[in-house]
Amino acid sequence: MTQIERARAGEATAEIEAVARDEQIDPEVVRREVAEGRMVIPANKAHLEKGLKPVGIGVAARTKINANIGKSAVSSDPGCELEKLFTAVRHGADTVMDLSTGEQIDSVRSRIIEAAAVPVGTVPIYQVAEQLDEIADMRPRDFLDVVEQQARQGVDYMTIHAALLREHLPLCERRLTGIVSRGGSLVAKWMAVHGRENPFYTHFDDLCEIMHEHDVTWSIGDGLRPGSIADASDEAQFAELKVMGELGRRARERNCQVMIEGPGHIPMDQIERNVRLQQEWCDGAPFYVLGPIVTDVAPGYDHITSAIGAAMAAWYGAAMLCYVTPKEHLGLPNLEDVRQGVIAYKIAAHAADLARHRVGARDRDDSLSRARFEFDWAEQFRLSLDPEAARRMHDESLPEQDHKKSHYCSMCGPKFCSMKNTEELRAMTRGKAEE
Amino acid sequence: MTQIERARAGEATAEIEAVARDEQIDPEVVRREVAEGRMVIPANKAHLEKGLKPVGIGVAARTKINANIGKSAVSSDPGCELEKLFTAVRHGADTVMDLSTGEQIDSVRSRIIEAAAVPVGTVPIYQVAEQLDEIADMRPRDFLDVVEQQARQGVDYMTIHAALLREHLPLCERRLTGIVSRGGSLVAKWMAVHGRENPFYTHFDDLCEIMHEHDVTWSIGDGLRPGSIADASDEAQFAELKVMGELGRRARERNCQVMIEGPGHIPMDQIERNVRLQQEWCDGAPFYVLGPIVTDVAPGYDHITSAIGAAMAAWYGAAMLCYVTPKEHLGLPNLEDVRQGVIAYKIAAHAADLARHRVGARDRDDSLSRARFEFDWAEQFRLSLDPEAARRMHDESLPEQDHKKSHYCSMCGPKFCSMKNTEELRAMTRGKAEE
Repeated sequence: MTQIERARAGEATAEIEAVARDEQIDPEVVRREVAEGRMVIPANKAHLEKGLKPVGIGVAARTKINANIGKSAVSSDPGCELEKLFTAVRHGADTVMDLSTGEQIDSVRSRIIEAAAVPVGTVPIYQVAEQLDEIADMRPRDFLDVVEQQARQGVDYMTIHAALLREHLPLCERRLTGIVSRGGSLVAKWMAVHGRENPFYTHFDDLCEIMHEHDVTWSIGDGLRPGSIADASDEAQFAELKVMGELGRRARERNCQVMIEGPGHIPMDQIERNVRLQQEWCDGAPFYVLGPIVTDVAPGYDHITSAIGAAMAAWYGAAMLCYVTPKEHLGLPNLEDVRQGVIAYKIAAHAADLARHRVGARDRDDSLSRARFEFDWAEQFRLSLDPEAARRMHDESLPEQDHKKSHYCSMCGPKFCSMKNTEELRAMTRGKAEE
Repeated sequence: MTQIERARAGEATAEIEAVARDEQIDPEVVRREVAEGRMVIPANKAHLEKGLKPVGIGVAARTKINANIGKSAVSSDPGCELEKLFTAVRHGADTVMDLSTGEQIDSVRSRIIEAAAVPVGTVPIYQVAEQLDEIADMRPRDFLDVVEQQARQGVDYMTIHAALLREHLPLCERRLTGIVSRGGSLVAKWMAVHGRENPFYTHFDDLCEIMHEHDVTWSIGDGLRPGSIADASDEAQFAELKVMGELGRRARERNCQVMIEGPGHIPMDQIERNVRLQQEWCDGAPFYVLGPIVTDVAPGYDHITSAIGAAMAAWYGAAMLCYVTPKEHLGLPNLEDVRQGVIAYKIAAHAADLARHRVGARDRDDSLSRARFEFDWAEQFRLSLDPEAARRMHDESLPEQDHKKSHYCSMCGPKFCSMKNTEELRAMTRGKAEE
């Protein structure tokens, strides 16, 4: 039985209880959200046995962030991917996706699942494509076998581009950047060669059976997400979103958990509309967005262009943010890129939780600001998202241990420190009150 | 005669014409915006003679960004400040503020004005405080003299905290982080010691006379901007904003140009309200915001926390964004911090221009995305906000010159490149159409 199935039967599973504790909300609220499909707990039974810590993804929970790791055919070795996993989780990634391509992907995945206490997602078509010379050679059976194999391995959620239909392909022809989803482009090629419907769509019920058996959560992939501001919110994108909503309903009817993936590249003024439409057409299923990037002009800084969009999307109601690293569009992220991406996304997710008025979200801000006002530098570093970086930057100009008690920093110096001045002002006011 | 005075008399000054060309808008629109106080062109006559290139700041123009430079008593030397100026301008800063404190600030300022083709702003109280042992010793005459001296030097706009009144001080007492504006805290201290009203408020008309004579643009400082999420949008902040509106009207009556400064630390859900209130209470005068930072928890990454807030503020109608560097709250920014801050803010400003549907704003995005789709790597680097960084990141994994023509990068490798797949898909469709 899957989490949604048991929740619908009225059961607050151990995983629901764990999520409720983690989120500081009532288990009954979590149970209801899971039962109604507005929250998922991606928790493959095989991974639970290996020590997975369940995570709730949905609008009633803290905004979650995902870090993509994995090697490509051109870059990285398996050991390095484990380091990326640890770096991502240490800095706050709530889930990771192993997007490895090239050789050895089976063993890389298995090592990541073993090592990860967070849910692990994959895109199974990558493995299928790796095993073939040409994606056109893929038989639906090959794909189902790979999904089954990965499900047995313990993958907690899978991105499958089942909603990209033949009839959508002509809608992409005048796009500036065509199809930018790797999985989407592969399945589009398959359809074009064979002149047949998307096999993941036609075999959707077979897929649901496997997902149901292992309680793998669906992450219905948006193969037609826009890859540039010019293509944002176009007909192709929304035509696919409608089908994603339909498939989400079908999967939930089969007692599967479902997330819906979202864009991509979207200018700021279209983000709210994108979230509202997804929530409406997909019955409130958790929206798992990639950014969105709000301008195309800053390769090398797309962790920032996309943190802007991600923060807004989460404020409007997206449940999980897939990080984008500084290396996006340019190459495979290295360890430092992973760190930069995760921290930018922790910022986006937390800013959204503040804007959503999540209970307790502001506590850390208040504690850090109190430490700042009290010149308790050590505490300020400790509470910050990246203590090491904060301390390093402070110490660049005032490295002595003494300065950890200074009532100023090198930004303003002692005479111009406004907080020091406020302290003196308050002392003055207290003095007058006592006179 | 000042720009606003001449614009009101119906004259399209040379500076108005220059701004209109730069912004690709009708000179008559610029003239009207300047006349009505919704746009300022900070252009001190002395600086114009030294080669200032006029810049229009207002909601009808491109979103502008300012970079704060300047040494503190603890850090930096004058030569380094010129390097910061060049770095900031090369990466796209539209104005700079010299916030130097400590020794030699007069000569640093003079060298910056000589070297800067962009408008230069200052906070004159820093110089006054530098000259005295205690801010309490300041006589209003001292302040007027410094303002006059800096105006003669060619400063284009000045931040003066004239709207922070005695009656506002009790409103700050329960704040988590008190007064965080350096200038604001100094003037508050002065008022507390003397038990008298803010001298910049009581001498406002005298100040207007100097500003008018040299056409120095007012940047009415927000001494009570919140310094933490906890203090955002509080009574103190809005009480001061009301007075800022009043002073703006008085200054415009005296034919002075006026900008209004804004926060600070504001959570995402309060940004729109902050901009709307400023526009309403200050009659549409250009809003010049510092960030805002949308969460307090990320010292070391406040260029990102604040780029989120800045992009949103500009979308809602702020005219100029004062950058925040990664070093904010921790120390004086160095050259690399300046670069990171400027680029984060170019992203925020451009994203807002896209969201505001500014004519032509999307051209660069479209060109870059076209180059990306065509695997024209050199053109993609050239069009990016930081070509050097984009090229360096690409070359980390594929350094050979050959790879500048590759139809893939190390992120996905050749087999999984969605854009390459789309190319093949389109070739296939064209093939079928020709059959």
